[in-house]
Amino acid sequence: MNIHTPKVTVGALPASRKIYKPGTLHTGLRVPMREISVHPSAGEPPVTVYDSSGPYTDAGVETSIERGLSRLRQEWVEARGDVERYEGRLIRPEDNGFVSGDRLTPEFPVRNQPLRAKAGRAVTQLAYARAGIVTPEMEFVAIRENLGREALRVRLERDGESFGAAIPDYVTPEFVRDEVALGRAIIPANINHPESEPMIIGRNFLVKINANIGNSAVTSSMAEEVEKMVWAIRWGADTVMDLSTGRNIHNIRDWIIRNAPVPIGTVPLYQALEKVGGVAEDLSWEVFRDTLVEQAEQGVDYFTIHAGVRLPYIPLTVDRVTGIVSRGGSIMAKWCLYHHRESFLYEHFEEICDICRAYDVSFSLGDGLRPGSIADANDAAQFAELETLGELTKIAWAKDCQVMIEGPGHVPMHKIKANMDKQLAVCGEAPFYTLGPLTTDIAPGYDHITSGIGAAMIGWFGTAMLCYVTPKEHLGLPDRNDVKIGVITYKIAAHAADLAKGHPAAKVRDDALSRARFEFRWEDQFNLSLDPDTARAFHDETLPKEAHKVAHFCSMCGPKFCSMRISHDIRAEAQKEGLAAMAEKFRIGGELYMPLDQAEVAETEPANRP
Amino acid sequence: MNIHTPKVTVGALPASRKIYKPGTLHTGLRVPMREISVHPSAGEPPVTVYDSSGPYTDAGVETSIERGLSRLRQEWVEARGDVERYEGRLIRPEDNGFVSGDRLTPEFPVRNQPLRAKAGRAVTQLAYARAGIVTPEMEFVAIRENLGREALRVRLERDGESFGAAIPDYVTPEFVRDEVALGRAIIPANINHPESEPMIIGRNFLVKINANIGNSAVTSSMAEEVEKMVWAIRWGADTVMDLSTGRNIHNIRDWIIRNAPVPIGTVPLYQALEKVGGVAEDLSWEVFRDTLVEQAEQGVDYFTIHAGVRLPYIPLTVDRVTGIVSRGGSIMAKWCLYHHRESFLYEHFEEICDICRAYDVSFSLGDGLRPGSIADANDAAQFAELETLGELTKIAWAKDCQVMIEGPGHVPMHKIKANMDKQLAVCGEAPFYTLGPLTTDIAPGYDHITSGIGAAMIGWFGTAMLCYVTPKEHLGLPDRNDVKIGVITYKIAAHAADLAKGHPAAKVRDDALSRARFEFRWEDQFNLSLDPDTARAFHDETLPKEAHKVAHFCSMCGPKFCSMRISHDIRAEAQKEGLAAMAEKFRIGGELYMPLDQAEVAETEPANRP
Repeated sequence: MNIHTPKVTVGALPASRKIYKPGTLHTGLRVPMREISVHPSAGEPPVTVYDSSGPYTDAGVETSIERGLSRLRQEWVEARGDVERYEGRLIRPEDNGFVSGDRLTPEFPVRNQPLRAKAGRAVTQLAYARAGIVTPEMEFVAIRENLGREALRVRLERDGESFGAAIPDYVTPEFVRDEVALGRAIIPANINHPESEPMIIGRNFLVKINANIGNSAVTSSMAEEVEKMVWAIRWGADTVMDLSTGRNIHNIRDWIIRNAPVPIGTVPLYQALEKVGGVAEDLSWEVFRDTLVEQAEQGVDYFTIHAGVRLPYIPLTVDRVTGIVSRGGSIMAKWCLYHHRESFLYEHFEEICDICRAYDVSFSLGDGLRPGSIADANDAAQFAELETLGELTKIAWAKDCQVMIEGPGHVPMHKIKANMDKQLAVCGEAPFYTLGPLTTDIAPGYDHITSGIGAAMIGWFGTAMLCYVTPKEHLGLPDRNDVKIGVITYKIAAHAADLAKGHPAAKVRDDALSRARFEFRWEDQFNLSLDPDTARAFHDETLPKEAHKVAHFCSMCGPKFCSMRISHDIRAEAQKEGLAAMAEKFRIGGELYMPLDQAEVAETEPANRP
Repeated sequence: MNIHTPKVTVGALPASRKIYKPGTLHTGLRVPMREISVHPSAGEPPVTVYDSSGPYTDAGVETSIERGLSRLRQEWVEARGDVERYEGRLIRPEDNGFVSGDRLTPEFPVRNQPLRAKAGRAVTQLAYARAGIVTPEMEFVAIRENLGREALRVRLERDGESFGAAIPDYVTPEFVRDEVALGRAIIPANINHPESEPMIIGRNFLVKINANIGNSAVTSSMAEEVEKMVWAIRWGADTVMDLSTGRNIHNIRDWIIRNAPVPIGTVPLYQALEKVGGVAEDLSWEVFRDTLVEQAEQGVDYFTIHAGVRLPYIPLTVDRVTGIVSRGGSIMAKWCLYHHRESFLYEHFEEICDICRAYDVSFSLGDGLRPGSIADANDAAQFAELETLGELTKIAWAKDCQVMIEGPGHVPMHKIKANMDKQLAVCGEAPFYTLGPLTTDIAPGYDHITSGIGAAMIGWFGTAMLCYVTPKEHLGLPDRNDVKIGVITYKIAAHAADLAKGHPAAKVRDDALSRARFEFRWEDQFNLSLDPDTARAFHDETLPKEAHKVAHFCSMCGPKFCSMRISHDIRAEAQKEGLAAMAEKFRIGGELYMPLDQAEVAETEPANRP
């Protein structure tokens, strides 16, 4: 087994330690966050930041990929008394694409019997929320979203434009319950994924990001994919989608889920297609249903379901520049046309709901008809599907299923807000989960950037989760390096959105880092940043010595021209004089002086809506 | 000499050739652009794109760094009959920081006597424009901005939101003259930089980008800086600023300007500071004036002048998180405080204008008090300076000097538009030239991305030129690789802005690339992109064989799952059936069918203002 066990990256990030906040309503909660310490000379407390990296960055925990993570939610699920353990579906050769021998990925060493809802019960966070119950998961995410701040003691700065969102100063478990009950937020948490540290996706919470991993028929392996998952969350991915389309889909997913402290999403249609030998026409509701149950038993937290790709919409795509760019969307469109029938996903949607509500698998209603080029943005096909997703949201909610809505794609900047407005109106404020959008087509190799622009903007406008794009988009399967760059780019977009929305928890980190920068606390600047390793390495390319880490300059300007160093000289001068004395001096001569009280009039104006 | 001659990157980009469009009003104009050819099977004409890379990418031209570029504007300048040649200022040891021996960069081998305006004459493009004259430079840029399109024959798609800009379908020389006369655009073109291919900076033209190069006391050399300039324009930089702050500033600049087909900008204060041994307090108007003349004679096309850093504003910065982050701004603030005097730049501003109008050096009115952190964005210091820049704009215009206004900085997304609106109102619509802005502080190592987001947005809102930021921002001097990444990122931002503004020339490239992508013309996709080398290399990491370049998949999804391949199958199916037949089939059974005429109602809505 040793030969096959993936090696993953463990260890704390620099100057960081994992802390755990306790619950009050529910005992035994241990809500993880990360504390970044700064140099004592700063006289500042550590900065607490959101932490999706799981036990891998906890120096006090020894993880073992073969054992999986501890099943922290197990008790909570069982304590609700509404689930039963059962034998579960056994693995079949088609689940792994009919691979055998040494081409077959080993099974995960530990097999747990799956849970499912007792007859007639809905075991979703939505059902509990509507019943007025604050679950341990809800309290967990409330504590997590607060990052330890207590607005009741410290008046928080609110400076932003949230376009009508309702971000509270302080997140209470009751607020979480209410948001979930309204369908405005989801807590993706399959009862069979008890290793997952609960998190929330919703417009009134921190903007989240997703990283896509998974093999393809051409490349990658289980070991690489497990390491990609651990690597992605280390840098900040809040959920991970396993989009594998090659061999060993079932077994790879097991290794991933058992070791994932974040929600795992999938597109079940991919595995269903593999089961029918890759022939889209041979898909059927029965094969698909079987795949849903298989994946729900493993613990997949959300399913992308392309039930909005309806037969009548397909003709709307034939004049597009880039047709249908969604894998699932194109597969369903092919099936529909071949059979001259309405989508089996659409027709059997209520049965899909029945499965999801029995395991608490959230829906990610797929945007199979999203635009894959600037030319196709906001077209009839795209919005026809969105209308259907709105219709399906209501059906899913009626079945107590949690729902989020997937979105584009390729959209030029001036068309982005219309997407947000329409989705809010049509889908009852269910959380929006977009792929970018890319704001131009002309830069393959840099699509993390073309899309980071659109993602930041649509996150600001209200999108709850941003699906990352890596530099390899359109060109090939991302490797580990690409995963990191994609994650960092999307953490930037999400954080820029939080700042612009006026999220009270956001600016703390920017301010702490800028103070470190201004005071030439180089290590602190690196450690507070999203990627301390890279920041340090870039600095050290030209100034590698330890002495340089306290230098009051860097190689951009050198010692004479460093504006920050000169700014310190200026302040020393100003303080020596005393501002009042300076004002007096300037008054002599009259016109030169602008009194400080007049200066206040010119102060920062309230945020404007662009 | 050979040992010291920089090696620069020459040669056409893939599938590209340089073409030259002739003038009509002025004979002898040769306006460069780049034609990218696609595979014959596409049946499509080449795509014409804007080209700032100069003769270095013209296979028909042999360049020699020791000789410099051909002085294409020389005749035009002399034909105006308003300039005189004179001896010029001789180089002094302080111009190169008192370096000698083999630490002294060799002088550029060719010395031309400088030109200056005859007594009392203003030789600026603004003066000519106001006099109703359409100069060769104006016709040149009109042709350049059109990229060969003729709106009169082809009705151009206009789909965008330009926030009140006035982008014409087709740029005429008269339109250019009018925009320049109004001060809404500038053509930076020092009479002593005749090698420069004229270009225009203005809200109603394509958004431009600037790349910063230059050594520091810590690192880099003339050879590296000349290659950086050639490298930067190869990838799309429209102007280049030489921000050298180390040794050999004068000689390095000569080598750069004589070989630069794009306008070169500087901050003369840096060299002035070097001349007084790096002691800000020892600066004086006399040293500065001498430096202006020295640099104007060399051919610098625009000067950043921090005349807005006024004595009364300095107290407004003492409570900032990051003080003054502009090198020039901090130097001037230090001088003012030390001498308890108003800025000599502000007091002698009209004399600076007299120099600029005699050589046609454009002003880039510096944002010395720009915010260097999210916390400082849009504060009193920043806007006080902007008000002064507005005042100075009027003074400069009264002297026939061309003016653009520099802008921030670090600004969260919700505060970006206010910057644009204020600058338009206060500065009489003079072109805005921003540095980003960075939309969060927390990602050193990735500040090309944090700022690319803000730059795309502020470009959309009306900013005329975007000054790039590289991954090394805040950490060290950028190297050649950083320069390229910064340029590509800012080309993305500028193009995304052009698209969103509805610039008629923009979408052609996105559409051509997306068609190539959809048709699996891989080489065409790479060649049409901003960075063909990287796109190709990324693709080839997993699929390197030549056969893969016609494959109907890549390693992201493999052959079975490629949505574009499946889309082609779908279209073949649809065509076989015929859309009408399909519609008929669907009508049977009724509810499944959405008639195509109803589909049109759901079509793309007009662009919304966010």
